Amino acid sequence: MADAPYTLVLLRHGESEWNEKNLFTGWVDVDLTEKGRGEALRGGRLLREQGLLPDVCHTSVLRRAIKTSVLALDEADRHWVPVRRSWRLNERHYGALQGKDKAQTLAEFGEEQFMLWRRSYDTPPPPLADDAEFSQVGDARYLDLPPEVLPRTECLADVVVRMLPYWYDAVVPDLRRGQTVLVAAHGNSLRALVKHLDGISDTDIAGLNIPTGIPLVYRLDADLRPTVPGGEYLDPEAAATAAAAVAAQGRKR
Amino acid sequence: MADAPYTLVLLRHGESEWNEKNLFTGWVDVDLTEKGRGEALRGGRLLREQGLLPDVCHTSVLRRAIKTSVLALDEADRHWVPVRRSWRLNERHYGALQGKDKAQTLAEFGEEQFMLWRRSYDTPPPPLADDAEFSQVGDARYLDLPPEVLPRTECLADVVVRMLPYWYDAVVPDLRRGQTVLVAAHGNSLRALVKHLDGISDTDIAGLNIPTGIPLVYRLDADLRPTVPGGEYLDPEAAATAAAAVAAQGRKR
Repeated sequence: MADAPYTLVLLRHGESEWNEKNLFTGWVDVDLTEKGRGEALRGGRLLREQGLLPDVCHTSVLRRAIKTSVLALDEADRHWVPVRRSWRLNERHYGALQGKDKAQTLAEFGEEQFMLWRRSYDTPPPPLADDAEFSQVGDARYLDLPPEVLPRTECLADVVVRMLPYWYDAVVPDLRRGQTVLVAAHGNSLRALVKHLDGISDTDIAGLNIPTGIPLVYRLDADLRPTVPGGEYLDPEAAATAAAAVAAQGRKR
Repeated sequence: MADAPYTLVLLRHGESEWNEKNLFTGWVDVDLTEKGRGEALRGGRLLREQGLLPDVCHTSVLRRAIKTSVLALDEADRHWVPVRRSWRLNERHYGALQGKDKAQTLAEFGEEQFMLWRRSYDTPPPPLADDAEFSQVGDARYLDLPPEVLPRTECLADVVVRMLPYWYDAVVPDLRRGQTVLVAAHGNSLRALVKHLDGISDTDIAGLNIPTGIPLVYRLDADLRPTVPGGEYLDPEAAATAAAAVAAQGRKR
């Protein structure tokens, strides 16, 4: 397509052990569940069936996104493509909420505060103490990050700020080379990217949910703007159902 | 250690579907067996238990080495380290023998010819035809390689020649930066590397077998020479047993 020279594929990791338990996860490095592995394989199968074969893959440094990329690429027979990982694609750091039960947090703090933390653009949860159980301070993978860079909590605005440099410096050059680029990441790092791509307002981004395990394809024009706003899911029906389920999270118990 | 500043860890992939079937594999991209996955996990467990934590990983573009690295790194909790893949770390291309039964080949061509193909330093098997079933011509992962570079058969001397540039340009710089480097690869690409490191003669290399799934650690001095010739296996007893089994291959049926 002359008017959409660039192909970007976004893939949100499938169910993790803490999704299943309804806990806030953030930067805690939990594994995929069996269901989550199945979702990753489904993502890879959709890529293969629809001929959207990644030439390169970018992921976070968290196991659930890494495994999703490994399983999806293996299923699409693209296990051999170059892969790059960066903390800048990590999930939003959930601060002091990391490890807390979502339903319990909702009951404790009330709907308004709960939704502010979950969906407001610029209100981060309270910071996580460095000596807290689920702190990432001292984690080998972040030792090169100066203390002012390693987050203790983040709102979505913070994620946009730390994600965008990676988009511009690592992902865009791959697109410009004409490669089909897979970004396998998390609910909020992908929301941050979609907000940027589609020019979604700080208010409207609250209503956007990205379903897990269903590749979301953006065909981008010469200025890296989406030719179809919001992109296209490889399985639109499953995506609609799943997005509704994500929106209902936190109320299920 | 002031006299051994560099740490290199070699890991040969575990049993593949074609190891199990006793077929020559070479560049055919077969998967690991359940046993092979277990060997990879054991390798990762040994790394973790002995505190040999890779900072970076290099593999081939073949699934059995890639999966071995993924499983071992995951088990060692180092799933997030940077990984680079290159065809230069691939197994020896086995030419027209790819896909052939080892025992049958032995019976058909006799012990002398069989051992010449398997263990001589500079006698490659006949080349694989481009339109043969197990040819890699047209494989997406090699499309950037000009025809004169993509092998149709290789002897071990050929593997040394194509592997060494990757050693010098990709692996050595990581070592010089002080990183613990994992190379997860194949029987013959690792034999080629060990031949280089230990200065093994063209004749003596025939007797060297590297067992699967047991990390082999080289502590290298400032000139990148091994401080312990032959390196050290993390599980020396299992390594000795396994090496003997590899040497007996081809005779088992």
